[in-house]
Amino acid sequence: MGLFTKDIKTFDDLFVHQLQDIYYAEQQLVKALPKMAEKATDAQLKQGFLDHLEQTKGHVVRLEKVFKMHNAEARAVTCPAIDGIIKEANETAGEVEDKEVLDAALINAAQAAEHYEINRYGTLVAWAKRLGRADCASVLQETLDEEKQTDAKLTKLAESKINARAA
Amino acid sequence: MGLFTKDIKTFDDLFVHQLQDIYYAEQQLVKALPKMAEKATDAQLKQGFLDHLEQTKGHVVRLEKVFKMHNAEARAVTCPAIDGIIKEANETAGEVEDKEVLDAALINAAQAAEHYEINRYGTLVAWAKRLGRADCASVLQETLDEEKQTDAKLTKLAESKINARAA
Repeated sequence: MGLFTKDIKTFDDLFVHQLQDIYYAEQQLVKALPKMAEKATDAQLKQGFLDHLEQTKGHVVRLEKVFKMHNAEARAVTCPAIDGIIKEANETAGEVEDKEVLDAALINAAQAAEHYEINRYGTLVAWAKRLGRADCASVLQETLDEEKQTDAKLTKLAESKINARAA
Repeated sequence: MGLFTKDIKTFDDLFVHQLQDIYYAEQQLVKALPKMAEKATDAQLKQGFLDHLEQTKGHVVRLEKVFKMHNAEARAVTCPAIDGIIKEANETAGEVEDKEVLDAALINAAQAAEHYEINRYGTLVAWAKRLGRADCASVLQETLDEEKQTDAKLTKLAESKINARAA
């Protein structure tokens, strides 16, 4: 991206930019999730992170499909938001002494990433439709649905077990 | 925050840490929202940012109330997540040439911040209840409700007007 030129000229450019942003975010999460699984103490939470890792790898592939459908290069642009969310997750985790409290902190961190993605995919679906790309919207919707399911699963796990153990 | 000591020992410490994190985030948004209002072209969007600025100032005061209720010092800790979200908003806005496309980008940026807050306040409400602090939970819930309303308003504005103009 140019420092002195404005590279986003049309709504379509903005859509592609946002695809590139979330493409980067998904790739960073593919790197972060195994570390989160390693830190988690609760077996169900650990498995949840590993399951979501596989799902996230699928999201990367799905984005590559959308890039191709939209005739755009599958390229990642740095996404400071996800970098910040992951940095905060690591910093907070590094401060926690108790293992059960750490599990609660890890779920909270994972949900911050989920919410970031739910927002971005929600926007991407709306923008794809507006651009007359119902086909791209439909593929992006699949990921959006999975992110929402993961978020709901994490809430359930936190409220049914992890928070009670931590408290 | 200690680099060599682990400062979060209990679930209560984690709750207070998360309060400090969102306290910082709200303060950063108080600084960011006037700039977003300045950049917005659409009058309704501009006013929306200014209204949310007033609301956000109220959230800062409400957090100070919760710190006091919980007998904790009202202190902000750097929140890399919101820093990243704001940095990304500025970077993307700086890349956009067309004013109507910029409005769409600004709404998307604002919703990233809203979703971050919705997630964090949702967690804080659940943690407060778990800690037997229904009184704190109730105050935090007021802000959570407002953040959700703002997010819904932004979605409505995007879908009814801003995205159509940008496309």
